[in-house]
Amino acid sequence: MLSKLGIIAGGGELPGRLVRACRESGRPFFVLAIEGHAIAADIGPDSPQRWIRIGEAGTGIRALRDDGKHDIVMAGPVRRPSLSDLRPDWRTARFFARLGFRALGDDSLLKALTAELEAEGFRVVGVETILHDLLPEPGPLGRLTPDEQGRADIARAVAVCRAVGALDVGQAVVVQQGIVLGVEAIEGTDALLSRCAGLRRAGPGGVLVKLCKPQQDRRVDLPTIGPQTVENAAAAGLRGIAVHAGRSIIVDRPATIARADALGLFLVGIGAEEAAP
Amino acid sequence: MLSKLGIIAGGGELPGRLVRACRESGRPFFVLAIEGHAIAADIGPDSPQRWIRIGEAGTGIRALRDDGKHDIVMAGPVRRPSLSDLRPDWRTARFFARLGFRALGDDSLLKALTAELEAEGFRVVGVETILHDLLPEPGPLGRLTPDEQGRADIARAVAVCRAVGALDVGQAVVVQQGIVLGVEAIEGTDALLSRCAGLRRAGPGGVLVKLCKPQQDRRVDLPTIGPQTVENAAAAGLRGIAVHAGRSIIVDRPATIARADALGLFLVGIGAEEAAP
Repeated sequence: MLSKLGIIAGGGELPGRLVRACRESGRPFFVLAIEGHAIAADIGPDSPQRWIRIGEAGTGIRALRDDGKHDIVMAGPVRRPSLSDLRPDWRTARFFARLGFRALGDDSLLKALTAELEAEGFRVVGVETILHDLLPEPGPLGRLTPDEQGRADIARAVAVCRAVGALDVGQAVVVQQGIVLGVEAIEGTDALLSRCAGLRRAGPGGVLVKLCKPQQDRRVDLPTIGPQTVENAAAAGLRGIAVHAGRSIIVDRPATIARADALGLFLVGIGAEEAAP
Repeated sequence: MLSKLGIIAGGGELPGRLVRACRESGRPFFVLAIEGHAIAADIGPDSPQRWIRIGEAGTGIRALRDDGKHDIVMAGPVRRPSLSDLRPDWRTARFFARLGFRALGDDSLLKALTAELEAEGFRVVGVETILHDLLPEPGPLGRLTPDEQGRADIARAVAVCRAVGALDVGQAVVVQQGIVLGVEAIEGTDALLSRCAGLRRAGPGGVLVKLCKPQQDRRVDLPTIGPQTVENAAAAGLRGIAVHAGRSIIVDRPATIARADALGLFLVGIGAEEAAP
């Protein structure tokens, strides 16, 4: 029998898919839902759950511990709070006192949170160990492939994305005809795409590249795309999307590929070679 | 007697200030004005001038050459065109054929243009050699100084700005409480500040850092701020601005400092130590 799964639920549809996967396989689970992010309807009123503010790490860990021994999965984006938004409980305050406030802008926050959970005896697992169709393979995922200009734009975006990722800033870059139209920071990929619509040049459209940060823990916060990302990329005038093969998540893969094909965008997994420095 | 000055005029108020400086000192000059960027009223109807599209490098160089031997200064931002916007004349096409289209996204474009002008026998000079009050010195420029949080945010922004600059992407970064709110690419600093207004966290506001790219030719395209930058930074909830001492331009320095003081923002020049890796 599978161990109980603790689902730390942020935004988006992944937490709901994890709940469904547990129900379908009969695996016991418990949802620790982050207020203002998790979608109650996706979790379902009958699911065992506890809702916490993001500053209530102590309450959250206690709730998981009281509920028994868990594997833990963290799924869905969580907006990074400011120190003043945080209103930390005692445990959260101790956690940040050890880390220093700089961690708020960093993946080191997620790394530290993972270490904290593991010190409590939980096992932290990646979402892809439960939902098996999430990670793209290298190469074209849909019908279309990038042309020479598209490949050159991907290469330039990969170089910028890796450098920005190494500094723990963002996971996405948009390049058109060699020009870096936008670099993602805290605003997220949808906002990045939205502003790139107004920055596009005439001629062949650009590409969106999303890469896992070189140093990030691959169990948490993998770069993610879905059907809506494809819609937004098309609306921004892009010609395609390249995602990190094996290190990014495609939410609802069939629908994502179908939208890319329908809208005429290429969708490719980038292998280790292209993503290498 | 001073040699004749060829002013390649992009947007903003610097070209007009150069024209006034020439008139006041009696220095002969000729304006090569970029359509869609240079401000005709600032250049003045009586100034010797020629207007060209950005793709008409051949026409522009010929106009400068026919007008005699010049020192050349390039002033004011020019929106980087796409290949299809460019509609290059023969000389421009040859220039880009040598460079490859990737140069369009790069400072290498400006470097190559500078080399092209020098190969024609022109001497390219920095705008600060003519307008002497443009470069900020290290340290506080106005009344206020950053506190510990402000200094930590500046340090984080400097690290990101240097990395992004080394990749020839942008010159500006906004950080609040350790979180990178935004990274400038092609959109420019005003658009960066405008979106950061909607991304700010509660608590102490962030900082804008503008740095010269490590590899860039210091005679062209120095990072620039002015009174409007201060207004926009204040509107975005920032607490201050740090600019590269000796390697950035403050347009209308007295008004810029006065606005910063009036709006309660610190304005500091960053010396080599802080801006070092």
